[in-house]
Amino acid sequence: MSSDLFEQHLNLFRRAMAAVEHRMFWSPFSEIPDMMNESAVAAGREAFEAYRDASFYLDQPGMTGRAGGEISPYGPVLNTVYPVCNPDRLIQAARNAIPAWTKAGPEARVGVCLEILSRLDKHGMELAHALMHTTGQSLSFSRQFSVAQALDRGLEAVTCAYRAMKLVPSSSLWEKPQSRGRPPLRMAKQFTAVPRGVALVVTCATLPTWHAYPAIMASLATGNPVLVKPHPGAVLPIAITVAAARMVLREAGFDPNLVSLLVDDETGSVAQRTALKPEIRIIDYAGHNRFGAWLETSASQAAVFVQKRAINAVVIDATDDYHGMLRNLALSICLYSGQMTTSPRLVCVSREGVRVADALIPVDQFCRDLSQMVSRLVEVPSAAAELLGAIASTESLAHIDALVDQCDPQTVLRTGTALDLPQWALARTRTPTLLRMEASALDAAEDALFGPIALIVETGAASESLALVERVAMEKGSLGLLLHSTHSPLQALAEEMALRTGLALSINLDANVLMNQTAGFSDFLGTGINPAANCSFIDPAYVAHRFCFVQVQQPAPG
Amino acid sequence: MSSDLFEQHLNLFRRAMAAVEHRMFWSPFSEIPDMMNESAVAAGREAFEAYRDASFYLDQPGMTGRAGGEISPYGPVLNTVYPVCNPDRLIQAARNAIPAWTKAGPEARVGVCLEILSRLDKHGMELAHALMHTTGQSLSFSRQFSVAQALDRGLEAVTCAYRAMKLVPSSSLWEKPQSRGRPPLRMAKQFTAVPRGVALVVTCATLPTWHAYPAIMASLATGNPVLVKPHPGAVLPIAITVAAARMVLREAGFDPNLVSLLVDDETGSVAQRTALKPEIRIIDYAGHNRFGAWLETSASQAAVFVQKRAINAVVIDATDDYHGMLRNLALSICLYSGQMTTSPRLVCVSREGVRVADALIPVDQFCRDLSQMVSRLVEVPSAAAELLGAIASTESLAHIDALVDQCDPQTVLRTGTALDLPQWALARTRTPTLLRMEASALDAAEDALFGPIALIVETGAASESLALVERVAMEKGSLGLLLHSTHSPLQALAEEMALRTGLALSINLDANVLMNQTAGFSDFLGTGINPAANCSFIDPAYVAHRFCFVQVQQPAPG
Repeated sequence: MSSDLFEQHLNLFRRAMAAVEHRMFWSPFSEIPDMMNESAVAAGREAFEAYRDASFYLDQPGMTGRAGGEISPYGPVLNTVYPVCNPDRLIQAARNAIPAWTKAGPEARVGVCLEILSRLDKHGMELAHALMHTTGQSLSFSRQFSVAQALDRGLEAVTCAYRAMKLVPSSSLWEKPQSRGRPPLRMAKQFTAVPRGVALVVTCATLPTWHAYPAIMASLATGNPVLVKPHPGAVLPIAITVAAARMVLREAGFDPNLVSLLVDDETGSVAQRTALKPEIRIIDYAGHNRFGAWLETSASQAAVFVQKRAINAVVIDATDDYHGMLRNLALSICLYSGQMTTSPRLVCVSREGVRVADALIPVDQFCRDLSQMVSRLVEVPSAAAELLGAIASTESLAHIDALVDQCDPQTVLRTGTALDLPQWALARTRTPTLLRMEASALDAAEDALFGPIALIVETGAASESLALVERVAMEKGSLGLLLHSTHSPLQALAEEMALRTGLALSINLDANVLMNQTAGFSDFLGTGINPAANCSFIDPAYVAHRFCFVQVQQPAPG
Repeated sequence: MSSDLFEQHLNLFRRAMAAVEHRMFWSPFSEIPDMMNESAVAAGREAFEAYRDASFYLDQPGMTGRAGGEISPYGPVLNTVYPVCNPDRLIQAARNAIPAWTKAGPEARVGVCLEILSRLDKHGMELAHALMHTTGQSLSFSRQFSVAQALDRGLEAVTCAYRAMKLVPSSSLWEKPQSRGRPPLRMAKQFTAVPRGVALVVTCATLPTWHAYPAIMASLATGNPVLVKPHPGAVLPIAITVAAARMVLREAGFDPNLVSLLVDDETGSVAQRTALKPEIRIIDYAGHNRFGAWLETSASQAAVFVQKRAINAVVIDATDDYHGMLRNLALSICLYSGQMTTSPRLVCVSREGVRVADALIPVDQFCRDLSQMVSRLVEVPSAAAELLGAIASTESLAHIDALVDQCDPQTVLRTGTALDLPQWALARTRTPTLLRMEASALDAAEDALFGPIALIVETGAASESLALVERVAMEKGSLGLLLHSTHSPLQALAEEMALRTGLALSINLDANVLMNQTAGFSDFLGTGINPAANCSFIDPAYVAHRFCFVQVQQPAPG
């Protein structure tokens, strides 16, 4: 059965291998006819509704009770409860599953991973509703970004893992010539890819699947069982994912405890306690800086892949398409209300203004223009709701409010307000807040830099903007920089800075490619050079550190 | 000049790429005609002698004084002094060199690395003498293992690094189709391999080059400048290496501060202090468990590759060639007086004895036979000196003496003694000590398990021996296991255990392949699954974690 799955998905997998190699456009899961299909949308909604007020079924060992308490950012109370399991029992069950999973070999493991992805794809609309009502993503954004693109990233991780395991042959005959006519020394060697141990994936409240799918796939394909600890506010999409994985594993004749769900018990500290257990040898985490940094310094027994909050920047010097630039930037700020790890936080403009053809647009006017563009995008509530989604956490709004309260009212360019959504009267929504701020005030604003907010920072010159961005990146952490400039020496300066600081640099985006969006099989994100992330989606280190090769050799007959 | 070097070494490099892929026998640096050539040996000796009582020249920044104090384990006082440099100045100089080194690209960097290896090969006999008179290796062992095979490992690392960097193309055109007849979105993307930062290589007293060459090469090829901190007892071979690297770098038009020597100041703690500096992003260390474990838990800002002391084991169940087995095992115990990280430490035998054809050799007799075989190998002092070399550290002898003092005299199978070497009257030599010991006494013996000693441990059965080895490996750390058994279920059991614990398993070695010897381009060593080592020579993770890809993208014309 198990190697059948590899055969079954071989066409897709061959295309994935080519895509990983060439890094051109390929998005195998992004054909989403169901978004256009009302009955598919309704079926997904129905499947989601069936989880409400229900007990989520998972036949995991060590169950000690049930817990749950998700409330949709759109209002509805989910009232779903999940099994709470003793982490030591889950770890023990996971460890027991390792030998057979290792022995099955790369093809069988990859076949199972591909089938899990394909199964999740079939549940796409159900997952999209589950994501919407936990993360606050709009349904279309969930379906596209958190299902289709997360599956793309998962497939990319499986593919990179397979490629890494295939860098070494499974056997070789080593034959060393000897002098003086003696027969050669001959050794038959086997090389087996073996896992590091048990992997722990800790997911966040806003992009749970997008971080988890590549992490789960990279670990599982390389032989590691995976415990997934979801954020208490976004358990359902992860529970659906784990259930699908367990079902595929069981059908393929493997131990379902290779993937299990670890939900918080009443202490709320199960992630902390589990992360330091010696059996946990890989940790993937996306979320708050403090916990991420704690993992990096404390969980020294594990390979730790962390994605923290990032202060991404835009440096505006000059543009050939002022309107296109404004629209692109405003879309980036609005998309999912700035709750993406890749959302822009700082917009740096030189005091001289923005150069456009032969004119200079003063900073005041640029601020007004950007505010207006944002306002225009969120003018019609139904369209705004699609773009902004809802807010996952009240905490980020509280931080933004606190920052606005401290500001001189003149520096508040735009105050975020709730949308009037008849369909979701209780939805927690907020249009973007735009503030103008001195660079010197950034440190105090740091906590507020998540969610529906962006800061416009004035500097002495574009090169000073780059220097500011470099300092913020190296001190606070940053993933990406968008530069608008028509001046090639400045572009070169930005490029050098990007290589130094590990920022993904985008230049002159003025159409429908946003700095927040990164494409599976093509884009790299997060480098480990600055503190924002020490995992890169998906470079060789992302998979290589999850397994090693063990050698068995014996003399071979001459 | 710089890409010329890549072209110049392209033939060799193509063969290296093939060898890495197939992992069959290949040892490009092992043709050692100079060992047979008395004038080459003499020229090497002369070059080495020129360093004695001299000031080693290195034009490094931040020099604060000179230090040195090496005494050959063969007796002579070297009295060579080396520049002591401020680590912050070396780090700053190293960082300044990064942008041009990154920009030069993989081929130019690899070309320089290949030229450094080739240059070191030309200094092979000089290096061998320098190694002999610092590590205590015999000249032939130095030349073969610490020069030729270290160069093999260095070349393997360069090759693996290049392959990892080439897993991603340098550019791609990303073209996303749009619906409703709109033109596709097109982005031109560049992907650049960029280094993590400054690398620190801390070398040990016994195998300095063998660990350092792959580490230096893996970091340098992927763009990282390297500071090499040698053990104070074995500075000279590393200083010669650094000087050669700096000369090649300068000749190729690069900053020589990409490779520098960091010698201890009077505090003796420069490694500790430097290891925690935020600029140090990669650390390679081989040596004591305590410092290795401290690095793993403390230097969380860096990717840490550690090779600690390992308790390698031999499990003896049955053999078809009792004499061959004894000789192979005795050679393994004697080779470089057990001062290799791969040397056997424990020999586990079942209480029933060793099965040979239809007979059973009692444990008592096996102990006598092994002792006699060792004694026979070290009978003639001149031949013994070639095999054993000298002892690098008095400390390991003191630990062994302390252990012997605690033992019941009946359990001392063989007491190590000094060799009588007229040529080196002051040489610190010691033939192997063999002790018989209960498994329960192993914990107390741990400190003594380095150098000229091996323990014979009696167990209830071969399967119990495997269980003991597994426990020791997971608790204390182990690299390899040698199993002698003709019983295939036991072989299968050992194989399963090796996959679980990350041990390199050798089965039934009875000729001239020793468990201590690992071949570049073929053998894997050290997996990170047990505590002995978290670096594997040389799997994908060994190189992948030293660099990442940074992306620059902009809209491409339609």
